Amino acid sequence: MSDEVVLALDAMGGDSAPDMVIEGVAIVRQRFPKARFLLFGDEVRLKELLAKHPDAAEVSTIRHAPDAVSGDARPSQVLRTGRKSSMWMAIDAVAKGEAQGVVSAGNTGALMAVSKFVLRTVPGIDRPAIAGLFPSQRGETVMLDLGANVDCNANNLVEFAIMGEVFCRIVLGIERPSVGILNVGSEDLKGNSAVKTAHSILKSHHMQLSFHGFVEGTDIGAGTVDVIVTDGFTGNVALKTVEGTAKMFSRFLKESFSHSLLAKIGYLLSRPALERLKHRADPRRYNGAMFLGLNGITVKSHGGTDALGFANAVGVAIDLVCQNFNDKIKEELAHLAEEPVAPQVASL
Amino acid sequence: MSDEVVLALDAMGGDSAPDMVIEGVAIVRQRFPKARFLLFGDEVRLKELLAKHPDAAEVSTIRHAPDAVSGDARPSQVLRTGRKSSMWMAIDAVAKGEAQGVVSAGNTGALMAVSKFVLRTVPGIDRPAIAGLFPSQRGETVMLDLGANVDCNANNLVEFAIMGEVFCRIVLGIERPSVGILNVGSEDLKGNSAVKTAHSILKSHHMQLSFHGFVEGTDIGAGTVDVIVTDGFTGNVALKTVEGTAKMFSRFLKESFSHSLLAKIGYLLSRPALERLKHRADPRRYNGAMFLGLNGITVKSHGGTDALGFANAVGVAIDLVCQNFNDKIKEELAHLAEEPVAPQVASL
Repeated sequence: MSDEVVLALDAMGGDSAPDMVIEGVAIVRQRFPKARFLLFGDEVRLKELLAKHPDAAEVSTIRHAPDAVSGDARPSQVLRTGRKSSMWMAIDAVAKGEAQGVVSAGNTGALMAVSKFVLRTVPGIDRPAIAGLFPSQRGETVMLDLGANVDCNANNLVEFAIMGEVFCRIVLGIERPSVGILNVGSEDLKGNSAVKTAHSILKSHHMQLSFHGFVEGTDIGAGTVDVIVTDGFTGNVALKTVEGTAKMFSRFLKESFSHSLLAKIGYLLSRPALERLKHRADPRRYNGAMFLGLNGITVKSHGGTDALGFANAVGVAIDLVCQNFNDKIKEELAHLAEEPVAPQVASL
Repeated sequence: MSDEVVLALDAMGGDSAPDMVIEGVAIVRQRFPKARFLLFGDEVRLKELLAKHPDAAEVSTIRHAPDAVSGDARPSQVLRTGRKSSMWMAIDAVAKGEAQGVVSAGNTGALMAVSKFVLRTVPGIDRPAIAGLFPSQRGETVMLDLGANVDCNANNLVEFAIMGEVFCRIVLGIERPSVGILNVGSEDLKGNSAVKTAHSILKSHHMQLSFHGFVEGTDIGAGTVDVIVTDGFTGNVALKTVEGTAKMFSRFLKESFSHSLLAKIGYLLSRPALERLKHRADPRRYNGAMFLGLNGITVKSHGGTDALGFANAVGVAIDLVCQNFNDKIKEELAHLAEEPVAPQVASL
């Protein structure tokens, strides 16, 4: 790890902010002792909290922000009036080169809108995407877009594939990740025109990318591929469907165990095993949705997260900074531009 | 129940056909002793099977079909060359009035294409939709479209809402089902133009329909509404995401229980409770996707189903026939046409 990682943190974003942000810094310091943090938020409150967490204080600098973006604020409104908010100022620190990345547990729509406005997209990327990690039977899967773009064309999907593949290599350490496009069937003839065109582009033009073809909803849990590409509407529904199904299953399981005395005894004996299951599906382990395609690292932590989840999101940001994520995306895009076109016959 | 329910069954559709079809008839006969069945398929094989199941034979008539539609046949190809298949002939029996509904566990795309071609859509319905039942924390939820239409406009979604609401009343017996549109957020300003326009139409024009507004992926498992409306792309992904997540969870649970001796003993004590869970999430209980909006009842059973699952799909078809499903949809559409427009001031 480089010595100079500095991250800007939106200390006022999230249901349990700013407390969980400070506690998160204390946790993350154990894993990344050399990282430093700029904390944007209410100076008085942050000072009080840091006084209680000297370990966090040692690696933090407070930057006062008079405003905070509320969870239900419209992105367009934040763009007009949010310049003095902790979120905006934290993003601005990345644009100014004071920090290499920003982490916020605040309003997702506002974070995307302001990041796009302040940081701009990487040359060659039309639209940024939100990427996240999903648990699967084979380990973990990257999926994008999770909600930044409700309407996507084929080129957007191709760009998501390139960015998702680089993200997967860095964050999961998979050397040659397989990439699939989410569709309603795995046959080539199914789907809407965007996925069909993206399929044929990826099949013919990107031979350095390990393209699997189409995958279906069942493949998310099965872990058939390492990276799943989809539009932001479908991706967001899939993300929340996984969440809702897991919750339903947990509740059914709980009710089953409380159904008889024997089952209750069985539950007590099985508890360590069930805790293992709980840990495996712990949403905090999968916290940290990354905004890919911007000139700067922006990581969104779940709004309802605690300090441990926030620390994981900060860890993802540090990984991306240290591995020069954006430079790698630019390299991939340069490869793409160099792709040989159909050979031309010289005119004699 | 009326005395005259006759259903046409595609006896050659599905992985375990025709055996599971005949066994399914035997099961369904216990629940609906007055129903009669036309079995379309290979006469020799069906005769042999019925000889082993005299209970099924008593309520069945064999209609020989020389061909069968394979699971991977293209719908367009079946439309050109499939007239002598068990699937086509079974659907044709509905068009001719010899049967009131058809059930098939065969190729979904072909079943939809041939049903649409032979039965045509109900006047006032632009596109048929596939509806299915999902388990939820509150019971069961109807969702549509599950894959008939990958691209949908706002009017399609409004029609799905009307059809889904009638379907829910009949199949789940809920007097005034609540209806929601699947979206990436529950706020009115989110989503693509199709869901936003459908939302405003349902909010302003269908006061007899209990319209909840937007729902998210988490609401499928939570059971927030009785009917969830979505396009066929998103619906198909959501359906298969639920399936994949449930499988992953089951596998994690199994692995957790085999992790230690104590956990194994706990498992043995909890087995009845876990069987209860398994039953609750048993996909066979949710078998029978209905094609809504056609002049005739078409029910698609899961291709990999066994006799019990097929019997449940047949049960859904009988319910819809007995409750005059299509007449009720026509009534609702008539209401819609009668909706008062803005009052006009008489010119004096």
